[in-house]
Amino acid sequence: MTTVEERPHTGFGRTLRKEDVRLVRGKGNYVDDVRLPGMLHGALLRSPYAHAKINSIDTSAAEAHPKVLAVITGETLKGLGLAWMPTLSYDVQAVLATDKVRYQGQEVAFVIAEDHYSARDAVELIEVDYEPLPVVADAKKAMAADAPVIRDDKEGQTDNHIFDWESGDQAETDAVFANAEVVVAEDILYPRVHPAPLETCGSVADMDPVTGKLTLYTTSQAPHAHRTVYALVAGLPEHKIRVISPDIGGGFGNKVGIYPGYVMSIVGSIVTGKPVKWVEDRAEHLMSTAFARDYHMRGEIAATKDGKILGLRVKVLADHGAFNATAQPTKFPAGFFHVFTGSYDLQAAHCTVTGVYTNKAPGGVAYACSFRITEAVYLVERMVDVLAYELKADPAELRMKNLIQPEQFPYTTKTGWEYDSGDYPKALQLAMDMAGYDELRKEQAEKRERGELMGIGVAFFTEAVGAGPRKHMDILGLGMADGAELRIHPTGKAVLRISVKTQGQGHETTFAQIVGNELGLPTADIEVVHGDTDQTPFGLGTYGSRSTPVSGAATALVARKIRDKAKIVASAMLEVSPDDLEWEGNRWQVKGDPEQGKTIQEIALAAHSSLELPEGVEGHLDATTVYNPPNLTYPFGAYICVVDVDKGTGGVKVRRFIAVDDCGVRINPMIVEGQVHGGLADGVGMALMQVIAFDEEGNHLGASFMDYLLPTSLECPSWELGETTTPSPHHPIGAKGVGESATVGSPCAVVNAVLDAIKPYGVRHADMPLTPAAVWGALNGRPIRTDLAIP
Amino acid sequence: MTTVEERPHTGFGRTLRKEDVRLVRGKGNYVDDVRLPGMLHGALLRSPYAHAKINSIDTSAAEAHPKVLAVITGETLKGLGLAWMPTLSYDVQAVLATDKVRYQGQEVAFVIAEDHYSARDAVELIEVDYEPLPVVADAKKAMAADAPVIRDDKEGQTDNHIFDWESGDQAETDAVFANAEVVVAEDILYPRVHPAPLETCGSVADMDPVTGKLTLYTTSQAPHAHRTVYALVAGLPEHKIRVISPDIGGGFGNKVGIYPGYVMSIVGSIVTGKPVKWVEDRAEHLMSTAFARDYHMRGEIAATKDGKILGLRVKVLADHGAFNATAQPTKFPAGFFHVFTGSYDLQAAHCTVTGVYTNKAPGGVAYACSFRITEAVYLVERMVDVLAYELKADPAELRMKNLIQPEQFPYTTKTGWEYDSGDYPKALQLAMDMAGYDELRKEQAEKRERGELMGIGVAFFTEAVGAGPRKHMDILGLGMADGAELRIHPTGKAVLRISVKTQGQGHETTFAQIVGNELGLPTADIEVVHGDTDQTPFGLGTYGSRSTPVSGAATALVARKIRDKAKIVASAMLEVSPDDLEWEGNRWQVKGDPEQGKTIQEIALAAHSSLELPEGVEGHLDATTVYNPPNLTYPFGAYICVVDVDKGTGGVKVRRFIAVDDCGVRINPMIVEGQVHGGLADGVGMALMQVIAFDEEGNHLGASFMDYLLPTSLECPSWELGETTTPSPHHPIGAKGVGESATVGSPCAVVNAVLDAIKPYGVRHADMPLTPAAVWGALNGRPIRTDLAIP
Repeated sequence: MTTVEERPHTGFGRTLRKEDVRLVRGKGNYVDDVRLPGMLHGALLRSPYAHAKINSIDTSAAEAHPKVLAVITGETLKGLGLAWMPTLSYDVQAVLATDKVRYQGQEVAFVIAEDHYSARDAVELIEVDYEPLPVVADAKKAMAADAPVIRDDKEGQTDNHIFDWESGDQAETDAVFANAEVVVAEDILYPRVHPAPLETCGSVADMDPVTGKLTLYTTSQAPHAHRTVYALVAGLPEHKIRVISPDIGGGFGNKVGIYPGYVMSIVGSIVTGKPVKWVEDRAEHLMSTAFARDYHMRGEIAATKDGKILGLRVKVLADHGAFNATAQPTKFPAGFFHVFTGSYDLQAAHCTVTGVYTNKAPGGVAYACSFRITEAVYLVERMVDVLAYELKADPAELRMKNLIQPEQFPYTTKTGWEYDSGDYPKALQLAMDMAGYDELRKEQAEKRERGELMGIGVAFFTEAVGAGPRKHMDILGLGMADGAELRIHPTGKAVLRISVKTQGQGHETTFAQIVGNELGLPTADIEVVHGDTDQTPFGLGTYGSRSTPVSGAATALVARKIRDKAKIVASAMLEVSPDDLEWEGNRWQVKGDPEQGKTIQEIALAAHSSLELPEGVEGHLDATTVYNPPNLTYPFGAYICVVDVDKGTGGVKVRRFIAVDDCGVRINPMIVEGQVHGGLADGVGMALMQVIAFDEEGNHLGASFMDYLLPTSLECPSWELGETTTPSPHHPIGAKGVGESATVGSPCAVVNAVLDAIKPYGVRHADMPLTPAAVWGALNGRPIRTDLAIP
Repeated sequence: MTTVEERPHTGFGRTLRKEDVRLVRGKGNYVDDVRLPGMLHGALLRSPYAHAKINSIDTSAAEAHPKVLAVITGETLKGLGLAWMPTLSYDVQAVLATDKVRYQGQEVAFVIAEDHYSARDAVELIEVDYEPLPVVADAKKAMAADAPVIRDDKEGQTDNHIFDWESGDQAETDAVFANAEVVVAEDILYPRVHPAPLETCGSVADMDPVTGKLTLYTTSQAPHAHRTVYALVAGLPEHKIRVISPDIGGGFGNKVGIYPGYVMSIVGSIVTGKPVKWVEDRAEHLMSTAFARDYHMRGEIAATKDGKILGLRVKVLADHGAFNATAQPTKFPAGFFHVFTGSYDLQAAHCTVTGVYTNKAPGGVAYACSFRITEAVYLVERMVDVLAYELKADPAELRMKNLIQPEQFPYTTKTGWEYDSGDYPKALQLAMDMAGYDELRKEQAEKRERGELMGIGVAFFTEAVGAGPRKHMDILGLGMADGAELRIHPTGKAVLRISVKTQGQGHETTFAQIVGNELGLPTADIEVVHGDTDQTPFGLGTYGSRSTPVSGAATALVARKIRDKAKIVASAMLEVSPDDLEWEGNRWQVKGDPEQGKTIQEIALAAHSSLELPEGVEGHLDATTVYNPPNLTYPFGAYICVVDVDKGTGGVKVRRFIAVDDCGVRINPMIVEGQVHGGLADGVGMALMQVIAFDEEGNHLGASFMDYLLPTSLECPSWELGETTTPSPHHPIGAKGVGESATVGSPCAVVNAVLDAIKPYGVRHADMPLTPAAVWGALNGRPIRTDLAIP
């Protein structure tokens, strides 16, 4: 299963990643590797307070530093029209604070120096007179009538309330609940976590004072969107901005947003006339860039006594920190929160989400979760287990009884979404078979006899990925259709230009395979260009598992355009009618006369040659397309986790993890499995150790990898992967996207396993992360919240 | 006439050149400005002999130089598959000589060192044991039976003959000559000249050993053609070659070819694993890069006694040097030599061209002459004056009598070409009116009375430009259709990508104006990208005045595609039928309701937005096209030159120059005039001073600007420009191309003027350049050849 073939000639299959030739040799080119002649270095001064008034800023000592060229404050920015940070949101954020600081780590000033060390030294020389203000770090307290108003800079804002969103039919749902035999409720927290990519954020801005052209090397998952945002919000002329995202060391949604540091590198280059590099350190990254989750949820589930689930009712309090920034447009997360109904055939469902400001870092983000789907799946899968607890039902059987059936697809949910395809029972049954579910339950029973704590957690998820359909979303007035451009050179070598941008997912391989599959070209002959707005068509970037569903579709379609055009050229070369040709692997050949045919390479040369083409047929062999998907795609999966819990310490050992994923057609199974491996590890981390916690004063308690724990191979079992394949009916190659599936599906499988292990102790629910302390507390009747260091 | 308006909002007209913002501030970026980290420097060892056997090469002393990294000879190259230089010809040239050297300056070895100075020093340390061979520097001697065979490396080559080409109907022409009342013959030489751009040739090759991708910064007029040639001939994979031509300091055809230095920088980068720069010095450039002309012509003209020209008969011996390299494919110059019939309505014409090898630098090139048109026009315009001399006719009147008439267009020549449009008599009359022709003749007569030598030279030319039509040419199996790609960003800013490459012509302005004219966008909002094969569509480059005729047409057409698509988007925005919309300057508006309309900027944002487009209409606002012109375009012009000749010294003073050009529609008249100014100066130079001469041993006598003289402002009068406008009927905007017109038309006007001045001395013809010595010789019955330092 994990054997890797040497590069196949063409098409789909296991093949070594093209990008790894450079990446594994240390020859990748990341933002911090960019060194331009005369380049200067910037560093940010950040607030030590979570909430404080700024009485004054004295930059004179920093400016006197012999290697410092400029010190910039928020006042400087006003004159440049760059005082407010471009966001993809209706909210805005000051690039540098002027009146107040509103979270610990907020950007206050920017120093530009000849070298990085001097810049950091000079930051320490800036004197800010802060007047501390009362802090609200807790979402529920922030909603209280007497809470300090954090965003008093916003006109008409008299409390900390941001928005109310609603999904589903409330009256219908209330009626179902009123008549249900069983109703169970639970308060469930998905704590704040941080995506924590290996590479922090950074940028090098190079504003050419002569041509007025800005080149910005930046850690962006969405280079085109960034360019358009700079153009629309900051007023820079769009054709004079080139955004280059070179190799990126992980994104996971964290690198979708625009951060003050990016803007400051641009401002620095404008002010000094030289390139300016800004790269944050780990603490800065963990403290100030986009977090994820922080959802305080109350779930209610209605069912019959024999376990038929009837409805769901959900209330969410969403902590968005001090600014509702980054990829959070008005209609969007609410839209995605429609999938809180999970993988089950319900009679009714209703959900409300209330957003709230707190004195914490902003930017609730799509951390490998397609905009809040992780929270939704966690909620519903936890609630199903809560129901199983009350009904004393087997969690796998309870799920099997309620899953949407294959014949119900396309399935319209109670919130109006149309799941495209699936065979859910098959996936769950495969996972149970692989796990040896019945044997595991026997083993568990035997261990319980002996007082040992073994748990079996089950989770089923449906993801909604492939952001694109116009009916579903609209960011900044921009749709989410993505372009693809394919050029076949005279010698038959191909260059594909795509709008999406890999942060490690392997686009250079996967997309070459899609072209190779359509045209019969060797993968090695196909160059994939991405991450440079000057060289690629518009599109909204890589996030929400949208690369294959959207750009992958565009790639297949643009290759088919080439194939269609090649047919006409071949017919002119062979002097036959196009109708007499058939496609055979890598060439057009004459029907019934396989001796007569032309490969794409031969056709490419002819299309650039003096061959007379039919009237109206243009020369060369290039094509472009823009793909606007008709619907999202809906990958799904069934996960089973087996854990052993140490009664004495509360320590959890993940013994086995069985993951059956159905992401439609797999282009490169090796890459798919790599994505799943990463997401599963992520899930173990979130379930057991990851949390961004704060104290009462809003102090950030997870600003290093000593405090913010990530899982290592020691915490992870050898993953057991299975697959079913239900192609998406509306995607050109039937692919669905898989980047986030395991992150969505795995946390609840782990949590359900731990709670299953400690069920004998009468614990129905405990919140993540289930650290040894939290598990020990649950076992000993002393539940604790690990997200807040508040007594 | 020469006032420059500030940048107009859109479209055609006089506007400052966008590129000058950087160029006049010294902020251009030329190949020699490219400095890459770790870059090494290369230098070539060149042969001091024009013809010699290489017995041995000893590189040991050079290799021992402490800063030398490698010394490469022809033997090294064989193992790399790069021993033969890619050319656009059926002939080939060794990158580095191995068996023999065949011209002075031929490349023998390449040294790579840490700095340029060390590389040059080490070149001097290489010991080559040469055995000198007999030299043939004269084309006629090279055709002799006993001449040494220069290309004995070519299989089956037993003499110095290269090719024979023929054009026109010989029998028909002979019949016309046999019956003509007057037949006049003349031997006419167009001596070897060199384009001598300000910037010499050079390249920086950067072969990435990890990805295998070669980036070549190079002084190329034809980046795409170079890439394809490297791919086809040198076997490098085409998608792994990026050719970047940055700012270029003049080309004039000299930078069409591929030179050994370019190849050696690539080889150097492969061998060392580091970037390698090679930039030649002035002497190297003048000695070894592509020359032009060197045509030994015998013209015959047949006419009636009253001056009706009936036919032309031409024999050419073409000296191609030691290799028939660069842009000289089989059918090509012969093809273009079809225009030797000039601007006259003839009964018959016939021409043969014989190519010959000599021990001189190779690469007969399109020096601002659209492949030999300069020679053809010079020949016919000289022959008309020779006829006028014999008939004692006025040269202007004789031309007027024989010009093709406006009603004859489209006019098919006796060689089968179709001149697209023109009003020749109008142009000539305008030139005569501007000159005050009759007054000048009176002044001349008066001066002759006083023994003063004043001359009035007239020349009329028809150019054939816009290489592209498949029926006319075929290079390396590649047609000459050029792509254009236009992207309108969401904010309405535009990026145009073209295949052609400016070497100073102002493409960034002209092409932006074409887009602006079609779409109503401000020129400042349109970025023109060119000169980078990774960023632009395929096309064969800028030469032969083809940029506006071919890529200009592609640009207009791609902008119209955008306009058509914008109409559909606008109709969706305005909720009306596309048929109800009309284009008004910069927007689509509802017919009869001018309040209702959408600008391109508004449409661009909508096309990227959630606007529902009609079925089958793709999002975004991008378009591509490939333009294969149906015919060449034929600019023309009438030139009159007035000179004064000093009897004592033979010195010539160009007192006035009247140039009426008709290049169809003028996009930016200021740029057109700049092109004409340069070409006129060029013509003065060729007529009076420029020549690449050789001695009997093949020693090059023009390897510096002390020896190879270029005209300065002191030699040029204040040009008097006029224009007529006959749009090309088949070009989308009616433009014809003007880059070479003045170079084609002016030399003969000057020569005719000088010969007109000295007519009283009974001189009918003298060859260029008409240096003081040559004129003095003609006046004193001692004609000399200035092209050969052979007694």
